[in-house]
Amino acid sequence: MPENDPIVVMKFGGTSVSGPEELKRAARRIVTAREAGNRVVAVLSARGKTTDELVAAAYEISDRPNSREMDMLLSTGERVSCALCSMAIIDMGHEAVSLTGSQAGIVTDSSHTRARIIDVRADRIREALGNERIVLVAGFQGVSTDSRDVTTLGRGGSDTTAVALAAALGASVCEIYTDVTGVFSADPRIVPGARKLPVVSYEEMLEMSASGAKVLQLRAVEYARNNGVPIHCRSSFEDLPGTLVLPESETMERPLVTAVTHSSDEARVTVVGVKDEPGVAGRIFKALADANVNVDVIIQNEPIGDDALADLSFTVDREDLHTAVDVIAELGDISHSVRTDERIGKVSIVGAGMRSHPGVAAKVFEVMGAELINIEMISTSPIKISCVIDAGKVPDAVRALHAAFELGEDAIVPEDPTGEHRPTVPS
Amino acid sequence: MPENDPIVVMKFGGTSVSGPEELKRAARRIVTAREAGNRVVAVLSARGKTTDELVAAAYEISDRPNSREMDMLLSTGERVSCALCSMAIIDMGHEAVSLTGSQAGIVTDSSHTRARIIDVRADRIREALGNERIVLVAGFQGVSTDSRDVTTLGRGGSDTTAVALAAALGASVCEIYTDVTGVFSADPRIVPGARKLPVVSYEEMLEMSASGAKVLQLRAVEYARNNGVPIHCRSSFEDLPGTLVLPESETMERPLVTAVTHSSDEARVTVVGVKDEPGVAGRIFKALADANVNVDVIIQNEPIGDDALADLSFTVDREDLHTAVDVIAELGDISHSVRTDERIGKVSIVGAGMRSHPGVAAKVFEVMGAELINIEMISTSPIKISCVIDAGKVPDAVRALHAAFELGEDAIVPEDPTGEHRPTVPS
Repeated sequence: MPENDPIVVMKFGGTSVSGPEELKRAARRIVTAREAGNRVVAVLSARGKTTDELVAAAYEISDRPNSREMDMLLSTGERVSCALCSMAIIDMGHEAVSLTGSQAGIVTDSSHTRARIIDVRADRIREALGNERIVLVAGFQGVSTDSRDVTTLGRGGSDTTAVALAAALGASVCEIYTDVTGVFSADPRIVPGARKLPVVSYEEMLEMSASGAKVLQLRAVEYARNNGVPIHCRSSFEDLPGTLVLPESETMERPLVTAVTHSSDEARVTVVGVKDEPGVAGRIFKALADANVNVDVIIQNEPIGDDALADLSFTVDREDLHTAVDVIAELGDISHSVRTDERIGKVSIVGAGMRSHPGVAAKVFEVMGAELINIEMISTSPIKISCVIDAGKVPDAVRALHAAFELGEDAIVPEDPTGEHRPTVPS
Repeated sequence: MPENDPIVVMKFGGTSVSGPEELKRAARRIVTAREAGNRVVAVLSARGKTTDELVAAAYEISDRPNSREMDMLLSTGERVSCALCSMAIIDMGHEAVSLTGSQAGIVTDSSHTRARIIDVRADRIREALGNERIVLVAGFQGVSTDSRDVTTLGRGGSDTTAVALAAALGASVCEIYTDVTGVFSADPRIVPGARKLPVVSYEEMLEMSASGAKVLQLRAVEYARNNGVPIHCRSSFEDLPGTLVLPESETMERPLVTAVTHSSDEARVTVVGVKDEPGVAGRIFKALADANVNVDVIIQNEPIGDDALADLSFTVDREDLHTAVDVIAELGDISHSVRTDERIGKVSIVGAGMRSHPGVAAKVFEVMGAELINIEMISTSPIKISCVIDAGKVPDAVRALHAAFELGEDAIVPEDPTGEHRPTVPS
């Protein structure tokens, strides 16, 4: 009875489906999972550079491409991947069917190019699984309830598609296949001795994704945590276990610091001489939120003296910088001037063990001081400390922190101590 | 009241939307039609070589790509064109919305890669037109009623999409924009003095499309005739009137011969020694029809003597040749052997005036004889005579017939004698 077979959702990123060989390799992975007794739903991204090429085509036509039409345009890339992969699976003797986001029942709001999933109506997927079919779903896209238009979920949205389907279908695991072998204690291109982490908690993964780890998309991790979906992040080119992302459990090892992350895609905006009236900062951040600009670190200098004017600084994604500046200009006469800085970076340490160890921040300052790196802004959470620094100093800062907290391969950390979180699909 | 504005359907082929400049040119045409007071629906093909590239990608994956998945794959090309063109129109200050075949209500049967339109549910288009929007529709595709799958209409299917929408919407005209300036008395690449025809009847156009004229797809002409949709076939690169395709009227000039057409994409199958039993030929052609093989010219030699065995020859599209041979093989022991010939071509003359002039066939034989061209097979209709000849002789045959029937630019033929069939969109 196929109704009793476990459901596995497998997501393949752009590099994992880039050409015919990669697509066939993904198809074989999918078939292997099916033949091991699973019901399989695979979510695919667009091939290689397809999305970039489509975006470029749009900007050849228009300086400000209409966002509804952008979604119609970009959604084609994942459909191509799915149709081709489905052909490959059928050639291997299995039944398969590819579905668009709309056909798969991914229902979103109407925020074109950044839509949020509000419902998953997976009847058509269940029907196909019941008919012994492998189901391929175009990632990154959905259909808006109100206008029945094609929407997209923003960059990296295929991860979210996969997790949302895993939640809706009650999948045993959501496997994210990518060109790296898992989640590392730091970016291995900067720290060659970085260690692959066998298990990470949702909370740590959220902080890591938010502070620059590109391996999993923040919203996907959030969705997985809220719905208790186990994620297995692994390589599509190697048959090794990757990193499991799971709820924090009593038995889970909690090192002081789990990983060092970094980001070089940020920019700082300083609003100079903000009128010190109640509500001005609120108006600024409300307007930025309305324009879909995510603000990361914020600091405000205390105004000194009577004709009180403060300086307000915050960081945003570099691609949102111009929008942020426009938004503030539209607010009218609220400050002397606005300064921007695109030469900033951010380095962060993340670890569930920090909660009970107040001395971590002090050690971070010490390490940065010894490296002569000036910390320009700082923000903390119970399990994360982020420092905004000069962009050019980011690699040094990552290496110094990774070494100081002894996160490398020599570190003695037990592998998946509970022993219960093994991938359900044979490698 | 926009409800009273005439509706114009404009179809742009692949070369008319191949790059950003072409797309913007198409967008300007569309905007011009809108600003002249029309409600505009534009049907777009995939850009340039997109469909060929997608087909090639499928064959990199599979020798026999699944046809449902092929349709999912190929349907993306037209969506890209529509989204980009819509962006261009919006940039020009008009409201526009692109729709997939499914969203546009193009409902088809389930014959993947060769689906037929069975219904047009254009509510969403009407709603968008009512909201003052220009509507872009992805050509060549629809959605199947039973399985809600994406279907495609086969090569050239965008013409059919355009005509079907024009019929459903009661459009005043269906304009087909292409890289040629109209329908000619012969292929101008073979006959430099060929004349552009200002008006052609549906019946003539049907025969011309069926006998090799590539400018309009046969099924689109059939659909237009059955639904009384006026077609205006014209160039997307020049602002000149093209060729109108209209019902034959009393006032329409009926030259003896209107055009010479030709085809070099055919192949002949000869079934040697067919058993002379009732129903054998029927079984052959039934099996070919079931396999979606279109048979064109058929001849059968009269069996002579008592142990009566006949030879049956017919022509098919060259790309269907292998299917045809397979189909006959599967019928089992019905003949001695099967011979094939890929070196054949076909030349035809078409003209509504032939109906009342029985001497035309004799003149064709005379012309071909004078050119020493052997006629291997012949087929006729009331307004057409087709001769199957050696492929290498086709250009000579076209030139000789074009000259003999005096179809060139020097011929005195009135331009649109009724004067009532003028394009409704300013050129």
